[in-house]
Amino acid sequence: LIAAGAQLLGKRAYGALGVAEICAVAGVPKGSFYYFFPSKQDFALAVIDEHWDQQRAQWAEILSAAAPIGERLHELFRATAKVQQDALEGTGSVAGCMFGNLALELSSSEPEVNERLREIFDAQVEMVQTALGGEHSRFAGSAGIDLGGLASSVVANLEGVVLLAKLHNDPARVEANWTVTARMLGLEPAAA
Amino acid sequence: LIAAGAQLLGKRAYGALGVAEICAVAGVPKGSFYYFFPSKQDFALAVIDEHWDQQRAQWAEILSAAAPIGERLHELFRATAKVQQDALEGTGSVAGCMFGNLALELSSSEPEVNERLREIFDAQVEMVQTALGGEHSRFAGSAGIDLGGLASSVVANLEGVVLLAKLHNDPARVEANWTVTARMLGLEPAAA
Repeated sequence: LIAAGAQLLGKRAYGALGVAEICAVAGVPKGSFYYFFPSKQDFALAVIDEHWDQQRAQWAEILSAAAPIGERLHELFRATAKVQQDALEGTGSVAGCMFGNLALELSSSEPEVNERLREIFDAQVEMVQTALGGEHSRFAGSAGIDLGGLASSVVANLEGVVLLAKLHNDPARVEANWTVTARMLGLEPAAA
Repeated sequence: LIAAGAQLLGKRAYGALGVAEICAVAGVPKGSFYYFFPSKQDFALAVIDEHWDQQRAQWAEILSAAAPIGERLHELFRATAKVQQDALEGTGSVAGCMFGNLALELSSSEPEVNERLREIFDAQVEMVQTALGGEHSRFAGSAGIDLGGLASSVVANLEGVVLLAKLHNDPARVEANWTVTARMLGLEPAAA
């Protein structure tokens, strides 16, 4: 059911998904849905948690690699582009970021989903901040920019560019953004 | 009807809006909706066009002002933050960007809406690019960054940070992002 939900959420808005359809895709009888999930919101939370478990593991691996920070962040952009490229090849359309999609659709109507998504974005920012701070403090200080603000902007940048990639159905936009993000960080990307 | 639609879209997902509700808020009989708009998609397009007419005029005024480019772009961030602050004070919640919200919700299901939103985001990028290119070419050249890519990143950054502002119901996040965007552009913001 969770896999079916994640797959359907890649293609359509949460509000447009019915429990019957999710069960049909998962190949389980409708009655079993409410056995596992008291409500559609509980189901959404389970799909979010599952997706975040995977993404967090991927981010942790990339950001803790034994490579310069610029290379690690570049790899984060590449990996994000690849997720969207895979979605494009598999389904014909760029799925966008599941968390961003749900944040925009549900943040005012489903408070528990909103709360979970806040925690996830905060955790993403913290992971990037740890990576930026770990090496040395060259990212902090200039022009009153703190590391938290810088990390938050990296996440906002990634989120915004995935939105544009989805709109244009073009995963290449994600990696194209890296050179500019590198400049934001004061890193000059290596020549291609 | 268009004003009612824009107001409701600030609070909820497009998919969660019914024609009956839009008409109730607008104070018109339901029959008149389909007199003006053959479908809900036509209505969405009219709301988008109206919103873009206003936003384009505001962006044009800000970006063509007689001020240094850094000050004009900072004002764009301030104006965006103010729209979200006004929404928060008026309705209790940060509305986010109507175009971004609709892009994530509808880009795979409503092709005409998707096409219109692409045109709008392209126009935003072009407006920023014109502003960046107008003064002199100091923004181009370094590290293989072209002006279009830089302008696209400014728009992606703004879009991403408005998403985070909506998620956290905190308009201050928008302007807080400006210092980092300024660094991305190679501009050091003036001390506060």
